[in-house]
Amino acid sequence: MEQRISLITLGVRDMEAQAAFFDAMGWQRVKTEDGVIAYDLPGQTLCLYPAADLARDIGVEAGAPGGFSGITLGYNVRDKSEVAAVLARVEPAGGRVLKPAGDVFWGGHHGYFADPEGHVWEVAHNPFSPLGRDGAFQWNGAS
Amino acid sequence: MEQRISLITLGVRDMEAQAAFFDAMGWQRVKTEDGVIAYDLPGQTLCLYPAADLARDIGVEAGAPGGFSGITLGYNVRDKSEVAAVLARVEPAGGRVLKPAGDVFWGGHHGYFADPEGHVWEVAHNPFSPLGRDGAFQWNGAS
Repeated sequence: MEQRISLITLGVRDMEAQAAFFDAMGWQRVKTEDGVIAYDLPGQTLCLYPAADLARDIGVEAGAPGGFSGITLGYNVRDKSEVAAVLARVEPAGGRVLKPAGDVFWGGHHGYFADPEGHVWEVAHNPFSPLGRDGAFQWNGAS
Repeated sequence: MEQRISLITLGVRDMEAQAAFFDAMGWQRVKTEDGVIAYDLPGQTLCLYPAADLARDIGVEAGAPGGFSGITLGYNVRDKSEVAAVLARVEPAGGRVLKPAGDVFWGGHHGYFADPEGHVWEVAHNPFSPLGRDGAFQWNGAS
């Protein structure tokens, strides 16, 4: 597993209110499909996604005390087969696979794991967002 | 506010168990002082810090349901005066200052704010970790 984080996802209740805050702080949104709001950062993207949908996608309770924090950290890979390969290392390493590798409705392939403290990580292959040679991620593909 | 995230901090209960997981996944720790464990990522650092200390530092409850998620996102600035300048934009933008700009025991200067969804952000000037020309952050200073 290379030493980088591709996506930081904030599960939010009010997408436009949250995005309005970043807009007001001077950040520029990147063009995305409906239902997600994203900000390209150097080598990574910060994503806003509805908290309930995010929890449902992972298969966890949205608001349970001591449960999911509402934040995931994303690790994107170059090839679809790498998703399962990374997830295979999780449980031996002391984590827990929450969702095994599988195709996703948007055309990608992903899975989720919880690290030992319960922070939720997504491992994903997104054919529409090829990584840069150095592993950099940008919403519409890195060069 | 430039469009980047310098630090991702995970508030954890068992530092060594959490770090052992990242070690086992193949990540290399960077040399740090005691009490913090860090992994340099491209242009940013992932930090492990005791959850109770992190909550105390921010001034929030560690485990309150619906409260602090245990994750902060860090935004580091080039000059001490920028900390207050960034925090001054927070409340007009719809966020809430949790801790005003002030000197920190480790020699830096920082403050905290909550974004509209309650995600906790730290704004910090760390004289020991100068930013790169492009804003890149590394634990021991970026070039």
